[in-house]
Amino acid sequence: MSDKTESVSTLENAMQLMIQTFHKYSGDEGDKYTLSRAELKVMLTTELGNYLGNAQDKNAVDKVMADLDANGDGEVDFTEFIILVGALTVACNDFFLEYNEKGEKKK
Amino acid sequence: MSDKTESVSTLENAMQLMIQTFHKYSGDEGDKYTLSRAELKVMLTTELGNYLGNAQDKNAVDKVMADLDANGDGEVDFTEFIILVGALTVACNDFFLEYNEKGEKKK
Repeated sequence: MSDKTESVSTLENAMQLMIQTFHKYSGDEGDKYTLSRAELKVMLTTELGNYLGNAQDKNAVDKVMADLDANGDGEVDFTEFIILVGALTVACNDFFLEYNEKGEKKK
Repeated sequence: MSDKTESVSTLENAMQLMIQTFHKYSGDEGDKYTLSRAELKVMLTTELGNYLGNAQDKNAVDKVMADLDANGDGEVDFTEFIILVGALTVACNDFFLEYNEKGEKKK
């Protein structure tokens, strides 16, 4: 619907995009509401290729899965996914701040 | 730049929107890289009015500040902000799943 009366804020838009992204991949196989190892790999490669570089590398996917899968069931649930995205966003923010500070010192 | 060669994925877009939103409000007063109580209130009211309802209510802002401000300095830093957004996103996702399940049972 393009003629919604309630406008969506930038932050609400970001939240909706994260929810949409998870469900785009989680529905492919097995439990509709979790990412299997295969679904996680497709998600990492497609959505975070620029950040994670070689998620093609099987070890990289295994490492992310081991770090995220807190309850050890071999599936990443939505909360575990949000923890990954949150940690990456904090890392990106730190990177940009450091980059900006270096730029300001040069002036 | 609208003619970027590197395309940004949906998830990367969401991450950038969260970073942009924080800095839009954090630069108003005091420390450029943290949200003061006043900045937090403007952010909550403007960005999350639909979710939080009466953030106009001073008590609501105080409660969010107390919950988020882990180190007790009266400022919300970027990591604390991401924890809030992550928790809200998980809550929204739970709500939509529950809503969908109810819809499916009705069929």
